[in-house]
Amino acid sequence: MKSRAAVAFGPGKPLEIVEIDVAAPQKGEVLVKITHTGVCHTDAFTLSGDDPEGVFPAVLGHEGGGVVVEVGEGVTSLSPGDRVIPLYTAECGVCKFCTSGKTNLCQAVRGTQGKGLMPDGTTRFSYNGKPVYHYMGTSTFSEYTVVAEISLAKVNPHAPLDKVCLLGCGVTTGIGAVHNTAKVKPGDSVAVFGLGGIGLAVIQGAVQAKAGRIIAIDTNAEKFALAQEMGATDCVNPKDYDKPIQDVVVAMTDGGVDFSFECIGNVDVMRSALECCHKGWGESIIIGVAGAGQEIRTRPFQLVTGRVWRGSAFGGVKGRSQLPGMVEDAMAGKIHLDPFITHRLPLERINEAFELMHEGKSIRTVIHFGDA
Amino acid sequence: MKSRAAVAFGPGKPLEIVEIDVAAPQKGEVLVKITHTGVCHTDAFTLSGDDPEGVFPAVLGHEGGGVVVEVGEGVTSLSPGDRVIPLYTAECGVCKFCTSGKTNLCQAVRGTQGKGLMPDGTTRFSYNGKPVYHYMGTSTFSEYTVVAEISLAKVNPHAPLDKVCLLGCGVTTGIGAVHNTAKVKPGDSVAVFGLGGIGLAVIQGAVQAKAGRIIAIDTNAEKFALAQEMGATDCVNPKDYDKPIQDVVVAMTDGGVDFSFECIGNVDVMRSALECCHKGWGESIIIGVAGAGQEIRTRPFQLVTGRVWRGSAFGGVKGRSQLPGMVEDAMAGKIHLDPFITHRLPLERINEAFELMHEGKSIRTVIHFGDA
Repeated sequence: MKSRAAVAFGPGKPLEIVEIDVAAPQKGEVLVKITHTGVCHTDAFTLSGDDPEGVFPAVLGHEGGGVVVEVGEGVTSLSPGDRVIPLYTAECGVCKFCTSGKTNLCQAVRGTQGKGLMPDGTTRFSYNGKPVYHYMGTSTFSEYTVVAEISLAKVNPHAPLDKVCLLGCGVTTGIGAVHNTAKVKPGDSVAVFGLGGIGLAVIQGAVQAKAGRIIAIDTNAEKFALAQEMGATDCVNPKDYDKPIQDVVVAMTDGGVDFSFECIGNVDVMRSALECCHKGWGESIIIGVAGAGQEIRTRPFQLVTGRVWRGSAFGGVKGRSQLPGMVEDAMAGKIHLDPFITHRLPLERINEAFELMHEGKSIRTVIHFGDA
Repeated sequence: MKSRAAVAFGPGKPLEIVEIDVAAPQKGEVLVKITHTGVCHTDAFTLSGDDPEGVFPAVLGHEGGGVVVEVGEGVTSLSPGDRVIPLYTAECGVCKFCTSGKTNLCQAVRGTQGKGLMPDGTTRFSYNGKPVYHYMGTSTFSEYTVVAEISLAKVNPHAPLDKVCLLGCGVTTGIGAVHNTAKVKPGDSVAVFGLGGIGLAVIQGAVQAKAGRIIAIDTNAEKFALAQEMGATDCVNPKDYDKPIQDVVVAMTDGGVDFSFECIGNVDVMRSALECCHKGWGESIIIGVAGAGQEIRTRPFQLVTGRVWRGSAFGGVKGRSQLPGMVEDAMAGKIHLDPFITHRLPLERINEAFELMHEGKSIRTVIHFGDA
């Protein structure tokens, strides 16, 4: 079938809106009509060419919501009409990782997904007869996309896809990192580095966890109003100080915070985030994605004296089991998605969404394929 | 009073056996007659001049056992005749750290201890009328030493000090890191980098925790026999492979170990130890002490995909509360100290102990001040 899609034809180039061919879903696969998709920094990161796994041409997009159109052979858990959120972290339920009880990082389709392929090693997308690659197993920048059954969370049939699409990545990543990775407890102090969508979601998660102090940190002071609205108790701009930001936070908190979150992808900030943690027990969670080949560093003394360095992917959330509950939370007003949505644009204007993001003017732009 | 002591007069120089003056214990202090002391790599590290906190002249030594001779004003928990193990990690019981329930890193005397001083900012040692510095709050290379009350663990009055002195550092550090920091569970896989005293203690702790596979790693194959005797299931020499040791361990273990321990102090090995951990949940514990200014590094992706980087100091053990129990364990045969003691020497030959250690010929040399 034909589908409108924003295709990344090469690194650093704007997306092109074209009509691609989408093949029928194969065994274990599902054809989904995407109604809405967010645009995330990770899409921009891959588009820039810095992502070592980036392949072109590809249909990017990984923060979407849609409706099942057709299921392939053997698909039993989904039917046409089901509302779904595509998952870049699958949940097969049977692999070593899924059954470990320790991680959400299902590896069932990881190998092919990282190469832009469906699990059978081929693509369902083509343009002018040539294959177009998938992206993160989701490719939500195409109106019709093919996704593995194990990479789809079936959500409430009344879920507002124009909002809950954001649970496909950023909001879930931030909130989940607070609860699943850090396990923030009432009264704990928290520092959040970077006030984009993920950082704001971390603040929201910290408020849910009843954190005591929530210190929001960004070099763009225009982010502070929303951070405070979300529940930040302090806003700090590193540019206002002539000493390292970790020293500022340590001084503010009588020795450092209980938990810090890096929500940017900057390896120098990752170091600051670790070193602003309290001696003896502070834990720093890396959420941001750094450029290829970049490395974090610190003196081992930081760890020997009790700090812990962790990371989080998709907030430690198991998509098929746990995302439906987060959708319910959003519908019940326990997760607030509206503040994240600063812009709405039709697919044809998707490149503007990237520009708004690069300029720091948007938190999330939600792209709509039909009506807004 | 006069005391025989091995004094470090300057970086890189052999210790000199001289008679120093030891002043009476002040308020909150205790005069201890050391009967036995181990010689540890940390002593050698400070003696080398690489320790940024190293000051000279000083009485080194931090792995000792002795008997209380005299107590200063206000000391209530100890009396002359008590057998004690000096603690380089104090336990005051009242500071923010002690009351946190999260760490053993009491900070009550940390500031002065790091400068080679007693808590009141002065020294009790002098030689030819000039002050001689303390070391790690313990200075067990002097027959008579003055230690803060909160830096002494009172142990079983029948404890064999010629053996349990080793619980003052290395053995406790290794065993404690397994139980308190990593919290190894039955069946877990473990990799141990460096088979000195601490690495062998980690193996002993892992056996106690009923770990499944215990992989012992060292570039000196002469260490393997003892490692196997202690309970290592596999011994690996990185020199036998032409690929990074982390790749070797990952291949041996279907994806990596549950826990790894760095027991050397080499920042490159710390990286290997992290990267040989299993994706999704593997945790690496840094125990070794790196040289001043040296930094650990890795790609943040290692953490984002679920590995955890921690450190451990004194095995997470609270000295005054927990060390007496470990002494009981040693007396009951649940902790085996004999295999660690490869040499015994009188104080006068203490420099030979450093040589044996540097040559990799000893695990621990126990120095005796009186009879062996």
